[in-house]
Amino acid sequence: MDRDPILLTPGPLTTTLRTKLAMLRDWGSWDSDFIAVTAKVRQSLLKVIHGEDSHVVVPLQGSGTFSVEAAVATVVPRDGHVLVADNGAYCKRAARLTNLMGRRCTVLPFDESAPVSAEAVEAKLVEDSSISHVVLIHCETGAGVLNPLAEVAEVCARRGVGLIVDAMSSFGALPIDARELRFDALVAASGKCLEGVPGMGFVFLRKAIVESCAGRSQSLAMDLHDQHVYMEKTGQWRFTPPTHVVVALAEAIDQFEAEGGQPARLARYTDNYRTLIDGMGRMGFIPFLEPAIQAPIIVTFHAPGDPCYEFRAFYEAAKKHGFILYPGKLTQMETFRVGCIGAIGRNEMEQAVHAVELALQDMGIASGEPAI
Amino acid sequence: MDRDPILLTPGPLTTTLRTKLAMLRDWGSWDSDFIAVTAKVRQSLLKVIHGEDSHVVVPLQGSGTFSVEAAVATVVPRDGHVLVADNGAYCKRAARLTNLMGRRCTVLPFDESAPVSAEAVEAKLVEDSSISHVVLIHCETGAGVLNPLAEVAEVCARRGVGLIVDAMSSFGALPIDARELRFDALVAASGKCLEGVPGMGFVFLRKAIVESCAGRSQSLAMDLHDQHVYMEKTGQWRFTPPTHVVVALAEAIDQFEAEGGQPARLARYTDNYRTLIDGMGRMGFIPFLEPAIQAPIIVTFHAPGDPCYEFRAFYEAAKKHGFILYPGKLTQMETFRVGCIGAIGRNEMEQAVHAVELALQDMGIASGEPAI
Ligand SMILES: Cc1ncc(COP(=O)(O)O)c(C=O)c1O
Ligand SMILES: Cc1ncc(COP(=O)(O)O)c(C=O)c1O
Repeated sequence: MDRDPILLTPGPLTTTLRTKLAMLRDWGSWDSDFIAVTAKVRQSLLKVIHGEDSHVVVPLQGSGTFSVEAAVATVVPRDGHVLVADNGAYCKRAARLTNLMGRRCTVLPFDESAPVSAEAVEAKLVEDSSISHVVLIHCETGAGVLNPLAEVAEVCARRGVGLIVDAMSSFGALPIDARELRFDALVAASGKCLEGVPGMGFVFLRKAIVESCAGRSQSLAMDLHDQHVYMEKTGQWRFTPPTHVVVALAEAIDQFEAEGGQPARLARYTDNYRTLIDGMGRMGFIPFLEPAIQAPIIVTFHAPGDPCYEFRAFYEAAKKHGFILYPGKLTQMETFRVGCIGAIGRNEMEQAVHAVELALQDMGIASGEPAI
Repeated sequence: MDRDPILLTPGPLTTTLRTKLAMLRDWGSWDSDFIAVTAKVRQSLLKVIHGEDSHVVVPLQGSGTFSVEAAVATVVPRDGHVLVADNGAYCKRAARLTNLMGRRCTVLPFDESAPVSAEAVEAKLVEDSSISHVVLIHCETGAGVLNPLAEVAEVCARRGVGLIVDAMSSFGALPIDARELRFDALVAASGKCLEGVPGMGFVFLRKAIVESCAGRSQSLAMDLHDQHVYMEKTGQWRFTPPTHVVVALAEAIDQFEAEGGQPARLARYTDNYRTLIDGMGRMGFIPFLEPAIQAPIIVTFHAPGDPCYEFRAFYEAAKKHGFILYPGKLTQMETFRVGCIGAIGRNEMEQAVHAVELALQDMGIASGEPAI
């Protein structure tokens, strides 16, 4: 019997046994013990962004997309106008859900191999003064690009426009300081860089706007204002919480804090990233992005040019050697992705590189070099 | 160190250790192993209602309410008109979410101590031919009333009106046969009578209506048609699934089938219910509902009339003796609730009755008799 493969997917990811062991108990959602877990999680989350003074945090059942949709539905007035700075798949999804719920939405397109430009966002805001909110994806997990959050936040603050940040794949690893950045909402989830299991998201809402959010959402389940008011009053979730996911997150956050919080996590992931890039580079693999704009979260590699290459077979071969890779998410180009996040360190990344080497051998591929 | 208390709450509930142990592994959501788990869960769910020929089943991230909202959003056209047969708190919630999403909604009120009347529903349908869909809660968990699903389904079929059933707290325990009942959507969740952990719901959609549901939902996250089409094509969930919750549900369903499926589960819960009612009756407690309309899922008891009684203290005392009770959910009357569902049997119910007895002693209460 083999060990379970290690997930190099950017959520679900590999979690520690300690985190998973927390799920071996059942909790009453109404009980004071569980209320205390929820309260502790919320406090810890606020600490991660130094948001105790400026923000509240509202957990929400469901996957990360549910929380992105909830943030837009709760924060943007029905007659608001959202500008989505689009450099990838998750940006496009944010635009789609904004349109669907009937909020006016303008997409500002950028290349998926480049970061969003804060200047271009500002120019658009100048050009169209009806825009009330900007949506920015912090780390666009589609290709792995790090977007200029501080610059875009500065533009939005200066122009008096609301900012909604999807920090799903960056929260906990990349620095985000609410004392220095102004944002109306920032979204993340349990199963990413905090290394919990998937099943809930959470949204930081700026205290100054919370009251104005009442009654905006057309969805009951996604009304973060309603969830917030209820939670403040009772300590409970409005609807049945994913209790096991919540206690696993609490346990994961304990380990996050013990490791040294965000700076330590960034250091470990950066080391994972370097180990990966170096090892893959030795085999001829070329990353899709320039290093300067690459977040150390997930790396997109060009597919090898060798005619024997085919992603499915490569995936299965790498899995046979103990590692789960991730398909590419680019529209135009054949790529695959490797995550650097999760409860893994340099050893696992070295082994992952070795597994890729063995996978290439199995497939009779001499080098990872792309076609052009 | 005491054992964890047993949950007599109707979800989250007490699950088996085997179900929880399934969460000790991490799964890649894109991987064929996880795709196989999802497929198996869906097949097993269809079998529970004998719906293989007539229905598809669409799992959804989030709590049960998310799936109720998704069912309404996906099944009811934007210009549809929903009639909610209202005899309790979950009915009122269904009406609220229907209104919020902008669907026309009429509420047909019934007493919360009585079942919905199929005749009254039919009279309303005759009176107002613009009604396109009826929403019925199978077991209204607020008080614990069993509603006449077969009769209401017959009326809806005869009148050519769609039926959306919230079977959250009954699915898996009470018989539901899709070969005999016509419904457009039926909603349930992982953490109820299947005895999984909370974190996902699922909706059965009648095959004949699935195609017509395209584009109805104004919510991306809650679009069951979109989720269904994607899942049929790829075997995957559209957005990150709560992997650990899904594998726990798969494990719980294995045990459900091994126990003998729905009939066996109903038999155990009925025995739990009788043990509870008999034992509580010996202490003077009076159930709120007539036995004939009581589902063996959750029992509402009148609060004791003794002036020393106060729910909070009673709850804490019962917890000290190892059992978690549930607050009442009636608007007019002081009550509390005790669930009969979860991975518990006669022993646990006998112990629960004894714990209540000890709790009364602790509080200096001589009898469970209500005030009037
Ligand atoms: C930047 C970003 N946004 C949104 C999501 C969507 O999250 P989920 O798949 O949990 O719905 C992801 C998931 O990886 C993400 O990386
Ligand atoms: C009949 C019924 N409908 C809906 C719900 C809501 O489910 P959730 O709390 O998981 O959102 C429940 C929960 O107990 C229920 O019993």
